Amino acid sequence: MTPPEPMPAPLAPGSTIGILGGGQLGRMSALAAARLGYRCHVFAPDADSPGMQVSAAHTLAEYDDLEALARFAESVDVVTFEFENVPVATLRALEGRVPCRPGNKALSVCQDRITEKRFLAAAGVPVAPWREVNSESELRDAIAEIGLPAVLKTTRLGYDGRGQAVLRRPEDVAPAFARLSPKPLILEAFVPFSAEISGIAARGLDGTVATYDAIENQHRNHILALSFAPARLPPAAAEAARAHVAQVAAALELVGVVALEMFLLPDGSLLGNEIAPRPHNSGHWTMDACLCGQFEQHIRAVAGLPLGSPARHADAVMRNLVGPEGLAAWPALVARADVVAHWYGKAEARTGRKLGHANRLLPMNALAGDAQPEAF
Amino acid sequence: MTPPEPMPAPLAPGSTIGILGGGQLGRMSALAAARLGYRCHVFAPDADSPGMQVSAAHTLAEYDDLEALARFAESVDVVTFEFENVPVATLRALEGRVPCRPGNKALSVCQDRITEKRFLAAAGVPVAPWREVNSESELRDAIAEIGLPAVLKTTRLGYDGRGQAVLRRPEDVAPAFARLSPKPLILEAFVPFSAEISGIAARGLDGTVATYDAIENQHRNHILALSFAPARLPPAAAEAARAHVAQVAAALELVGVVALEMFLLPDGSLLGNEIAPRPHNSGHWTMDACLCGQFEQHIRAVAGLPLGSPARHADAVMRNLVGPEGLAAWPALVARADVVAHWYGKAEARTGRKLGHANRLLPMNALAGDAQPEAF
Repeated sequence: MTPPEPMPAPLAPGSTIGILGGGQLGRMSALAAARLGYRCHVFAPDADSPGMQVSAAHTLAEYDDLEALARFAESVDVVTFEFENVPVATLRALEGRVPCRPGNKALSVCQDRITEKRFLAAAGVPVAPWREVNSESELRDAIAEIGLPAVLKTTRLGYDGRGQAVLRRPEDVAPAFARLSPKPLILEAFVPFSAEISGIAARGLDGTVATYDAIENQHRNHILALSFAPARLPPAAAEAARAHVAQVAAALELVGVVALEMFLLPDGSLLGNEIAPRPHNSGHWTMDACLCGQFEQHIRAVAGLPLGSPARHADAVMRNLVGPEGLAAWPALVARADVVAHWYGKAEARTGRKLGHANRLLPMNALAGDAQPEAF
Repeated sequence: MTPPEPMPAPLAPGSTIGILGGGQLGRMSALAAARLGYRCHVFAPDADSPGMQVSAAHTLAEYDDLEALARFAESVDVVTFEFENVPVATLRALEGRVPCRPGNKALSVCQDRITEKRFLAAAGVPVAPWREVNSESELRDAIAEIGLPAVLKTTRLGYDGRGQAVLRRPEDVAPAFARLSPKPLILEAFVPFSAEISGIAARGLDGTVATYDAIENQHRNHILALSFAPARLPPAAAEAARAHVAQVAAALELVGVVALEMFLLPDGSLLGNEIAPRPHNSGHWTMDACLCGQFEQHIRAVAGLPLGSPARHADAVMRNLVGPEGLAAWPALVARADVVAHWYGKAEARTGRKLGHANRLLPMNALAGDAQPEAF
């Protein structure tokens, strides 16, 4: 580990936080920053992005516009990002001019699935078997070792199920390779998981780590549909989920929030899958069920403030509002007394687009045991 | 009562809410609106005001700039205001072009203490004895009827103790009259109150009224210092406080949030004092102790959405952060795990200026009985 960054004073109220990216994660970070008295300056290539609508300033520019980046660096006191596919070169152009939190280490680890797997294993988080794949013959060798079913993925820029193919039978191999190559690929063993779990941690500038309760996730069409907090897990697994994401936060030397997606195996053990070095969709319930939600934690870390309490005061179910179906569900959800409803200010309700989310709060321990909460 | 406004559809997400005034109440309303997917457009005469820093658009103009008001009306879907001293002429210039919620009735009732007293009595809320005062001889007659001590106030534009004088002895009368005249004045009986109480209600576009638990307030230098929720009141008085503010909301035919300041008398009865037809400083605890705080309620009403639940999930103490002392307290408060801290983005920490507030959350019923919560 490199020595810790010398501890600067927290950003004074009225300071400006620069945010790379103008989507909903940037927007909710900006709203949390505003509550703490900070100004936000959003840098993004899309006009009228959700983050810009709630920020004191914005720069409309591409991520490789070095001149715009230099002006941006001059006008802010610290920089963070809302998504991990910000080009490393962008952050490199900013570092040295202004503190960047998290820094390039978190970005570069998380932008490549192979680096990410190696990092997880080194951080002490078990992962499913995987092999690097650069040719069809390497793919066939990897299948011989790992077996089928398996998942073939591009190593970079995949999200919400894009850039991947499930290989179930030998005849799936050639078409999947043809579709995904010549990008660098990774073959991962198909994990017969009994649940998808995520962990969310914040790490402050002073190295303190805070973790939220483990979360159980359900996807639909490769997009997160529902998150349950706390996850319905045996106590040891719930503790392991928190410990794993804390290990990741510490090993990344991250300043900010990080999420770790994991698979729960039938034997109760967990395998690490993907890291997101930022607030995560599966942590949106924290906004309403905790005194300090994940966006405020992120801003606290980035601003050098002490972390807040990640304690829960309610059980929660988060429902994503996606595409036209999400828009249609909005009027009924916003009318519910037990729901806190969030909408992101996106211009169009395109299919597959995350437009908002609804946090249904339940009494503590309502999710415990085998009781399924009513559909919502 | 005039017939209810025909019920229009709620504002669709992405619609724009115009806010007259750019202070902290407008800012917190804008943040609540953003969470529900609305854009805000702040109209205010002060550049870089707290509300503007978090809004998608702003107009920097005086409240009597009719041309700017006309352009503003064109660019928003509904108008609300964050303070009741917006000139009636301003709202008149907007009405007819765009829905104004609340409308001019609420403004005109609350801008004049005499209209306000008459309104309260008509709405069924008892008030302390008072007399209109337009000359020193009228003042002496009023004192003969009401007695001393009494409070002499300007009928308009008073807040935080400005524009008023306590008359304790006969020799206080002439200097107080000289200082406050020739403005129209009102003499109010001095109420030997045992506590200052406020009630907060929201009234939706459909006439539904929701009330929060009654609040107990402590002032310092005529500025609200602490609010306790729920107020430590006998159950009948707690119910009466909610009923009184609900009566006010209904009688004003208000769409939005309204606060009623009251005095608790030693016999347990309540007297109405002042109405604020907007979210109120004594309701800031609702932001963190309720699923739907007063700013979200206000936006819901203004947008024609159903009201949210005013139920509390915690007891709460709100501390105002005022002037340099408030700024000095910020680092310790933002570090507390049981506090949600809010800062307003004001440029200067002038004496007497409200810069932020801190909500300390306690377990339900922690404030019940005679236990005093620890100082904070």
